[in-house]
Order: sequence, then structure tokens, then C-alpha cells
Amino acid sequence: MAKRIIGIGLMGLGVIAGQVARVVRDRAEALEQQVGCPLVLKKIKVLPQDLGRPLAKELDSKLLTTDAEEFFAEPGIDIVVEAIGGEKPAYEYLRRALSAGKYVVTSNKEVIAKHGAELRTLAKERKVDLRYEASVGGGIPIISPLRFDLVANRINGIYAIINGTTNYILTCMAKEGADFASTLKKAQELGYAEANPRDDIEGIDATYKLAILSSLAFQMEVLPGDIHSEGISRLHARDFRYAQELGFAIKLLAIAKQDDKWAEVRVHPVFIPEDSLLAKVDGVYNAILVEGDLVGKVLFYGQGAGPYPTSSAVIADVVAAANDILRGAGSWVRWEPRKDKVLKPMSEVITRYYLRMNVADQPGVLAQISKILGDNQISISSLIQKDADAQAQTAEIVIMTHPAREAAMQTALKDMANLPVVREISNFIRVEA
Amino acid sequence: MAKRIIGIGLMGLGVIAGQVARVVRDRAEALEQQVGCPLVLKKIKVLPQDLGRPLAKELDSKLLTTDAEEFFAEPGIDIVVEAIGGEKPAYEYLRRALSAGKYVVTSNKEVIAKHGAELRTLAKERKVDLRYEASVGGGIPIISPLRFDLVANRINGIYAIINGTTNYILTCMAKEGADFASTLKKAQELGYAEANPRDDIEGIDATYKLAILSSLAFQMEVLPGDIHSEGISRLHARDFRYAQELGFAIKLLAIAKQDDKWAEVRVHPVFIPEDSLLAKVDGVYNAILVEGDLVGKVLFYGQGAGPYPTSSAVIADVVAAANDILRGAGSWVRWEPRKDKVLKPMSEVITRYYLRMNVADQPGVLAQISKILGDNQISISSLIQKDADAQAQTAEIVIMTHPAREAAMQTALKDMANLPVVREISNFIRVEA
Repeated sequence: MAKRIIGIGLMGLGVIAGQVARVVRDRAEALEQQVGCPLVLKKIKVLPQDLGRPLAKELDSKLLTTDAEEFFAEPGIDIVVEAIGGEKPAYEYLRRALSAGKYVVTSNKEVIAKHGAELRTLAKERKVDLRYEASVGGGIPIISPLRFDLVANRINGIYAIINGTTNYILTCMAKEGADFASTLKKAQELGYAEANPRDDIEGIDATYKLAILSSLAFQMEVLPGDIHSEGISRLHARDFRYAQELGFAIKLLAIAKQDDKWAEVRVHPVFIPEDSLLAKVDGVYNAILVEGDLVGKVLFYGQGAGPYPTSSAVIADVVAAANDILRGAGSWVRWEPRKDKVLKPMSEVITRYYLRMNVADQPGVLAQISKILGDNQISISSLIQKDADAQAQTAEIVIMTHPAREAAMQTALKDMANLPVVREISNFIRVEA
Repeated sequence: MAKRIIGIGLMGLGVIAGQVARVVRDRAEALEQQVGCPLVLKKIKVLPQDLGRPLAKELDSKLLTTDAEEFFAEPGIDIVVEAIGGEKPAYEYLRRALSAGKYVVTSNKEVIAKHGAELRTLAKERKVDLRYEASVGGGIPIISPLRFDLVANRINGIYAIINGTTNYILTCMAKEGADFASTLKKAQELGYAEANPRDDIEGIDATYKLAILSSLAFQMEVLPGDIHSEGISRLHARDFRYAQELGFAIKLLAIAKQDDKWAEVRVHPVFIPEDSLLAKVDGVYNAILVEGDLVGKVLFYGQGAGPYPTSSAVIADVVAAANDILRGAGSWVRWEPRKDKVLKPMSEVITRYYLRMNVADQPGVLAQISKILGDNQISISSLIQKDADAQAQTAEIVIMTHPAREAAMQTALKDMANLPVVREISNFIRVEA
């Protein structure tokens, strides 16, 4: 209890970092009550363009520096809060902060997803803590539950809607029957999708977050590149119509499962039953369903992005780190990743499937398709044929299968695509029950 | 890091305590990895009848004692885990454990609800921690989020389904159109309701839990007796039919709100919009919706009871306490309850209302009823009249009001009941939007 204040060094002054600075400044009294001593901003590392922001002008100019050397030379910093985003230079900054024995709080999903194992090990060595609640799910507590609250459990599965942009687009497509391109455009106009939306709509952002969650939940190093990932751009309004007809919603789900042998990690669009709780998670909201062997199913829901919710998570981490520092508590990083667990290859994954295809409208087509599925040990659970196009002499067929192995399905898809009567395999979506 | 083991003293050997003992025994290796040293059961305080349990025979008999003095004399106990339940003698045991400088983990909602302020103060004085995650929502993390993860927020509201028995009954009544008595009987047969179901169905259990949540969220002492509480036994199958017709679900909700002037705490059945997330929480599941000024709405969902989920919460608390002990971290109880906030009297509460009444089937009845409502500044939002009973010459009227003050509604209810044309005010349910 020697210290009288806790000094904070903030990296960044963008929307997230700016809101963090405001909370530290505007709620000083309430935070002091929680920590037991004042939290004080000692230095803020900014970019030259940040100096023009209104907040930069409100703050004491001596706090601001564009020079990383000056930032790291500030002696009064106990906790480094990084909210720059992106891999570089944030990764180097975090290494440097931990190496210098600083507690670190970050909202940076990319750095934690790619370098979490190394940074956790570094924090452990230096007897400090590395906290990153804001890196997944905005203000929704999910890192803390996995690190602390669910620690008695073996985590069997995680099913997460963790990208607000795609969930907003999918919700609109489902409710309005609109197509992907026009819905993306609308999301961009409303600020829910970026000008370059690739990271969100192709599932890359979700793989970062799933890498973080599954590494923690399974205590093994899962990298973004380990995760099979597909985005939502290939979804059509017709798929949503069929989903509704069949009693499903379509969501971009980040899935992690483990059994005694394998860990399975993937991000892709799925059909989920329309009466499941995850199916009700609409718009930019996020939800993470965790299955533990003791706790059963627990779900965490809230706004997955935005400066206010994200600052809620960052400040909670700062308060926790400050308490640990004041109590002289050192590190509570339990990171001894297991080496025995193997990632399941995608070819071994077993799910049900939804298939939509365009076929010649003539006798015997179904027999040929069923034969290929049967030859690959895939059985049909239900089938819809409609929308025959008299002029083109084609029809649309939708098939729901029973559980089948991905490798078998890929072979069947290839064989069916080669059938002269099959004009097009229009879509192919996995089903999670 | 002087200690080599963390000793646990367990109070109770019922279903919850027994499961806790099993987890400590059967997951020793995984828990040691989380804590950094072994967790060891040093003594178990049992009742004479517990000695006949299968688990008691599996355990080393020297661990078991029916004598509280012997339990407290055991020198190797670092953490006292209490899972006896009920106010007495648990309350005395917890005081005694904290006074002796032990860390305390409890699942006891009644003791924490009634004596939480005193016990938190005691823990703070003795520089130990008092943890009670399992006291609300079974395995759902909700105490940790309020204590730690949402600490940057001003909590504006809590809306919680925190009693599995009543939620199971309400779900059955909604889905099957059954009446209360037969549904309660079924719940008892299935083990979802106790032989004496009063604490659950009359909302008493929920007031304990709401007292705990609101005390934490508002940092003020809220006692169970401060909470306006109504149960579900007065709900009829007809109310569910009307609710569905009007687009609502009926739930027993524990509600806590605060504004600059008042804190408002109440437990009673409510109409909530059928498309809200809480309306989808079915069966024995629990959900707690928290509204923070930064984080917005976050929801925590899961199994609110049962030995497995509850043990998940208890063990998480034990691991956290063990880590604090090993790190020499002392207490992190920030409990300086504010004295300035006043509880809102129920008469000042403002909600919308659903009214169902049985009236004489004759001209002018509606005029008399509307006049009374109007005289009390209550305006009608919608009205259904149906089910005229030709023989009895009565009709049923259902009224949904706009927001009105409780005091005004109570006056109006009395005045309407005195009208000769009103045979009965059949029910009266508040609406939460």
C-alpha cells in the first residue's frame, strides 16, 4: 500500500482511446473509490493527426506526445493502456511495456489473437498482468468469465456472434428480404460497416476474436490462421427465404468445440434453429454462448463495439490492474498451454448441410443427385423443389441433409457439379443444432 | 508465495456442498494449475444425517465433524466455504470465519441479502474477501460482473428472471394454457418446485437475490424488506391468453432502477413485449439484464440453480480467493455504501398496467370505468371486451393503460371495485417495456 496514485499511460487518442481518457478524467472520484487511490493520466502517445481532435485541446498539452520514446521514458506509468488497434506498431509497444514491468490493458484483438501466447508468457515472467477484455465483444464481459468465473469447468463449446457488422447485415437481409450488396451499402451509409468492409464480411475479424476465446477456453494456442473461415458475401435473399421456410435463422457463427481428441475452430455462416436464443440476437448486438461441463449453457449478450461499451471493458481492466498493483498482487496469468491437443482438420468436421442448386427440369434429376449423396454416405433429411423456370427449363432444389462428414460433402458437391443436369450449386450452408 | 497448499473448510454436505467437495477432489490437478498450488479439503462440518450420504463414506472420516467448535479449531483452513443455506446458523458461522481472518465463499442468498453490508464491512476490516457468486443465478457470472467488469458504469437498471421455479411454472402456463395449481403440482412432481413452494412462488427467493444485486449495483444497502414483492399464484390461464393476444409474455421480474433521486426495487409479475430477449428465457433458466450508462444493455443467461452450475460458481470463488491468498493480496472489498439515496415508495412507481375485470353486461359500464380512470389521470391505451356470459349477464373487459402512477392506479382500482356494475377486478399486472 505504498503507492498513492496509479499512473496510466494511454496509447492512442482515437474514438476508443479518447473515450477511455474521458472516463478516467470525468469519473475520477468514482474510480478512486473503486481503486482506493486516484487513477491519473501521466502520458498519452498520439499521432500527429490526433492533435487536432477536440479532446486533445481539452487535455493538458504536456500529457501528449507523438514520440514513443518519450512515452516509454515517463517514469510515473504503472499501467499502459493500448487502444491504437492493428498489429503494428501496437505489438512492439505491448512487448516493450510488459518487458518494462508495466501492467498492460489492451483492446487490440489482432495483436492478442496473433501474439497472445507470447505476451501472456512475457507478462507471467515479469509478474504483471495482461488484460484484454475489450478485444472481444466490446463491453460484454467474456474474457473475465473465461479466465476466472468459469475456471472450474471444462469448456466443451463456444458459439458466438462476435461481429456486429455482419450480424447487422444478416438481420436486415432476413427482415427485409434484401440482397447482400444493397444491404452492405446501407450498413456503410449508417456507419455499421467500414468503407473497406473486407475484415468484417469475410469473417477475418471474427477469427481474431475466436482465436482469443478458444485459446483461453481450451488453454492451447489457437492462431487466426488455424481457423477455417468463410464470410457472408455469398449469401442470397433466397437462402433467407428457404431458411425461414425450414424454421432456421442464418448467422455468422464463430464456433469452437473440444472433445478428448480434437479441438475444432471455425467461422462461417450457419443455419441455426429460429427458436434458439442466438437466433434472436439481432442487429449490431453480439452474443457468446459458452458450454461448460458444470455450468451448462451460459450466454453473454450486449453491444459488441462502439466507444462507450469498449471503454467500459477497458476501464474495468484498468481498475482490476490498479487493484492488483496496490495490493502488490503480481501476476495472475495462468498460461501453460497444452501441447497434446490437435486441431481437427475441416475435412473431419461433421454437421448437417443445407444445399441449394439449380437443375434441369426433367425426369430423373433427383435420382442422380440422391445417388451421389448416397454413394458418399450422406442421407437427405428434407427436400424442397420449387420455382421451376419454364423458359429456362430449370428448377431450384433445396436439400437438408442429416449429419455428414465435410470431406464426403465436398466430394459429393464436386460430383454433383459435374452432373450435366446440375446447372449450378447455388449455395451450401452448414447447420448447427 | 510462502504457502504450499490452500486449505479449505467446507460447511455442509448437502447437494451443493457435496458437489463442491467432489469437484475439489476430482479436479485437483486442473485446479492446482489454476491456483498455482494444491487446494486441499481440511475439514467438513456436517449434520448427523449427512454421515449416511454415499459421499460421506467415500471421504476420509477424519475430515468430517458435526461439531462447529472442532471445525473452527482446525488450523489449516484458509478459505471457509459455506453451503448450508438458510439464515441460521450460517450467519453466525460466516461472522465467525471472517472474524478469524478466513476468506469466505458462500452460496447463501438469505444471509448475504440480510447481512451482506455487515459481512462486507467485516471482511474489509479483516483484510480478507467475501465472495458469493453462487448466491444469485447459480453458475451465471453476475456478482463478478457487477463487482468488477461493469465497475466503470453507473448502473441504471437491472431486470432479472432469477427464480427458476416460477419461470418454469410461467413457461408451462404460457405454452399449455394450464392453470396455476395444476402447473405447480407438475413442477413439484418434476422436482422443480419444493414441497413447500412459498419462498419461490411468492417472490421471496427473488427478493433475496434482488437485494444482493441492487446493493452491489447501487452501492447502497438494500434489504429484502425494502423490496415490494408479489408472487405468481394469482395469475390465471386467461391472463396468459390476453397477454399473447396483446403481444406480451408474463414473467416474474426482479427490477431495480435508479435515477438521481431514487432507487426503485420491486419483484412482481409483469407483461413484457414478446419479442424482448427476456421473454425468450424459458423453463428453469435465469437471465439478468443489466443497463449501464457506458456498456448499454448486457444480458447474462444460464441455469440459475442445481448442484453442477452452483458448484461452478463456488469453485470459481474459491480459486479467486486462493489466488488472492497466495499473492498476499488481501481484501478487495470496496464497500462504502452511500447514504444519500432514498428508496422510492411503491406509490410513486410509474408503469403501464393491464387490468382484467368482470362487469355487468349492460350499457354505460365502460363510461363509468373510463370516468374513474380519467379522474385519476390514467389514460387507456387499448381495450378488449369479450367472453360475455349470457346466463350471468356479465362480460370480461381487459384494459391496457398508458404509464400511470401506482398511487393513482390503486385509488382507481378501489373506486372501480366499488362500482355496482363491476363484479370483480380479476387481475392487475404491471407492464415493463
